[in-house]
Amino acid sequence: MSHHKGPAMSQIDPVLAHIDANLEAATDRLFQLMRIPSISTDPAYKQACDQAADWLVADLASFGANASKRETPGHPMVVAHTNGAGKHVMFYGHYDVQPVDPLDLWDNDPFDPKIETTKSGKVIRGRGAADDKGQLMTFVEACRAWHAVHGTLPVNVSFFFEGEEESGSPSLVPFMRDNAKELRSDLALICDTGMFDPKTPAIATQLRGLLGEEITITGPRIDLHSGMYGGAAINPIRVLAKIIASLHDGKGKVTIPGFYEGVPQMPADLKQQWNDLNFDHDAFLNAVGLSELAGENGKTALEMLWARPTCEVNGITGGYTGDGFKTVLPAKASAKISFRLVGTQDPHAIRKAFRQMVQDALPDDCTVEFADHGASQAVQMSTADPAFEKARLALSDEWPNPAAFVGCGGSIPIAGHFKTELDTDAMLIGFGRDDDAIHSPNEKYDLESFHKGIRSWARVLAALAD
Amino acid sequence: MSHHKGPAMSQIDPVLAHIDANLEAATDRLFQLMRIPSISTDPAYKQACDQAADWLVADLASFGANASKRETPGHPMVVAHTNGAGKHVMFYGHYDVQPVDPLDLWDNDPFDPKIETTKSGKVIRGRGAADDKGQLMTFVEACRAWHAVHGTLPVNVSFFFEGEEESGSPSLVPFMRDNAKELRSDLALICDTGMFDPKTPAIATQLRGLLGEEITITGPRIDLHSGMYGGAAINPIRVLAKIIASLHDGKGKVTIPGFYEGVPQMPADLKQQWNDLNFDHDAFLNAVGLSELAGENGKTALEMLWARPTCEVNGITGGYTGDGFKTVLPAKASAKISFRLVGTQDPHAIRKAFRQMVQDALPDDCTVEFADHGASQAVQMSTADPAFEKARLALSDEWPNPAAFVGCGGSIPIAGHFKTELDTDAMLIGFGRDDDAIHSPNEKYDLESFHKGIRSWARVLAALAD
Repeated sequence: MSHHKGPAMSQIDPVLAHIDANLEAATDRLFQLMRIPSISTDPAYKQACDQAADWLVADLASFGANASKRETPGHPMVVAHTNGAGKHVMFYGHYDVQPVDPLDLWDNDPFDPKIETTKSGKVIRGRGAADDKGQLMTFVEACRAWHAVHGTLPVNVSFFFEGEEESGSPSLVPFMRDNAKELRSDLALICDTGMFDPKTPAIATQLRGLLGEEITITGPRIDLHSGMYGGAAINPIRVLAKIIASLHDGKGKVTIPGFYEGVPQMPADLKQQWNDLNFDHDAFLNAVGLSELAGENGKTALEMLWARPTCEVNGITGGYTGDGFKTVLPAKASAKISFRLVGTQDPHAIRKAFRQMVQDALPDDCTVEFADHGASQAVQMSTADPAFEKARLALSDEWPNPAAFVGCGGSIPIAGHFKTELDTDAMLIGFGRDDDAIHSPNEKYDLESFHKGIRSWARVLAALAD
Repeated sequence: MSHHKGPAMSQIDPVLAHIDANLEAATDRLFQLMRIPSISTDPAYKQACDQAADWLVADLASFGANASKRETPGHPMVVAHTNGAGKHVMFYGHYDVQPVDPLDLWDNDPFDPKIETTKSGKVIRGRGAADDKGQLMTFVEACRAWHAVHGTLPVNVSFFFEGEEESGSPSLVPFMRDNAKELRSDLALICDTGMFDPKTPAIATQLRGLLGEEITITGPRIDLHSGMYGGAAINPIRVLAKIIASLHDGKGKVTIPGFYEGVPQMPADLKQQWNDLNFDHDAFLNAVGLSELAGENGKTALEMLWARPTCEVNGITGGYTGDGFKTVLPAKASAKISFRLVGTQDPHAIRKAFRQMVQDALPDDCTVEFADHGASQAVQMSTADPAFEKARLALSDEWPNPAAFVGCGGSIPIAGHFKTELDTDAMLIGFGRDDDAIHSPNEKYDLESFHKGIRSWARVLAALAD
């Protein structure tokens, strides 16, 4: 690559060599952490969560960080500071893991990690290998290596580990609010996402927001017999179906008035980056039995997934849904409807416009109840901050393909919390692969992800320092 | 009334007087039958069903009918003949009853019938009071009274009682086929329906048919995450909603090609009869919390309910329907859809056209599975047979308002079976009221329904004889 090397960049080679030479020790440390069954959602593992936090405190302290376990009403947080010089970055990860059932689908004990050789290379197998113990340790090991080689870190690094990410993070926002001053930084770093593909690293710079609504339409006061009332009485399933059918026009656009307010035009350079990714949308769709893009006419697959808002029906129910048949005209029908949001779309304005549209479509004999299933705005990182381009180039040095700024179709709550609670942008860099089986039996993390992940963070830290 | 009185008509007055004088004895007999807990669907009551059949055999024999219990793979049939002269009528009823749970919602033992005085008059309370023990005994008592007074019956009467009507009648059609010669008659009489209103008797001369379909639309091979795929992958709930929304046009007409083939024009005189009924559609709708007719534009309520075909969605399900929210794009969505048919609409042709329409509306990435939930054509009695008008006038003699030929929005399988298995029209005359709570706790039959029901059948038998 042709970019300028600053002073920290010139310090990188011995760090990378140290990382390469000590990979086995790094893997051993990861295995120690993975052996602790820190399943946050199951009270039976409360002690294990506590133990994982203790392990991290000790591990961070081992290379000089000022680490402490911080109690919460739930599982503890771990916060550590290195009080280094220069730019202050706050690294976030989570030490808790998903439950392991069904246990009989695991080939090995999920908490007895192993290196396995597969046809696509060596993998670290076990619960938390990818989500998130393996990923968080890439950053910790990068810091350890830098510290081992240079006796300090290239930037001012803090650590913030949570133990409730897999169980809804009930303590997270209160803890951020209570400790805002301590947790604020120039930039949050998060390692809980994936590569674009095994050769192409990615920095997620735009995450879609999510608005959840549930509508229940009531027609008659009671379920009616379709022989006695059919043809004369209103059927709320038909009313609901008509409303759902009206939410999109023939070109796949959402018809709610004002819905596209705040949806940005794609910047030309980002559009070019995404095109250069040569996303194989056929393979993406074929993997799930589909062959055609079903979104807005004229948009690419990546635009549909990352840069365009959606309106989807996630569930619908009404009338008799058991085996056989019942000739009922139901009193009620309901649907769960969600919206993925981008740019500066205002979820509250969209909720209001959606509800108004439903009300307007309602026949006189129907009423509707709405339930609010949450609203979060899209998160857009300020990629004008040079740190993002520096990190992108640093990642590009490590991997076969240049790194890309990508979007994320789903929301990643922690990135939003850094933004709203601490007014800090988050840089989401991760080394997971699509086949890591996170949340599933036989979770794995490629040894290459771990190794090159550590090297990647060393490069990113150097780049951020300069 | 001004109609001609024939010889049998001139014999009616002493029969009516006999009925009036012996009402208490008739009620006692009904109570004997009601005390037998002949719940056909519950194997625990098999013996009781058998006992009810035995009771009927003995009761029919007591006024000279040649009655026998006939075994089936299920509960027995009772068949009886009187070998009288003239027109041969076959009376059908069923001696089995619905289960009684939830028992705690009954004010009394459902099998210990009582006369209760309510604000609208005396009622017979207990399971089977209306459905169908009370109704079937109206006919039996009319015959008994006629026989007691005149030593014979005015027409040739046979009886055919079933014990499986409340459990799907599995033995009925096979029994009809095996005994077709014995069961064939000039006219079937059935007492298992209701009055138009408490003052207006009714003969149901047209019953809608029923076609049941279930469609399951599959999009992706597996449920997808709406963050990862939303906007690019097809959503089968949306596809299903669009199909359902397309089944009716803006005027409430069904859009399936050829759907209205075989739907007859209303004859002017029948239209007049229905208008004369002054059906209170506001009260009908208000009772279930509605205020507006939701069917085809320009049709009256009774036309919508009795004379027009429908397409209704009886159930719909897809995606996540539990508490809370799950951002899933489901692999499948399905709906149960039924059609009420009239005239000579061909259910098989409509099934085919419906399926073709669904197929044609399907995006390339979706597949559909169809399940067949039965098909029965509408039943239209030949009201040109003078027996119908005779019966109508005879009923008009008994009740405050003239009797009407009415339709029935639901299907009554037995009427169809008489038509298809025995090529016999059925005359459906019943004295039930809307508030009889059949199939529910505290079932009742008005003592007036029972008393005037017996008198009505005596008059109808006389009218049929002349």
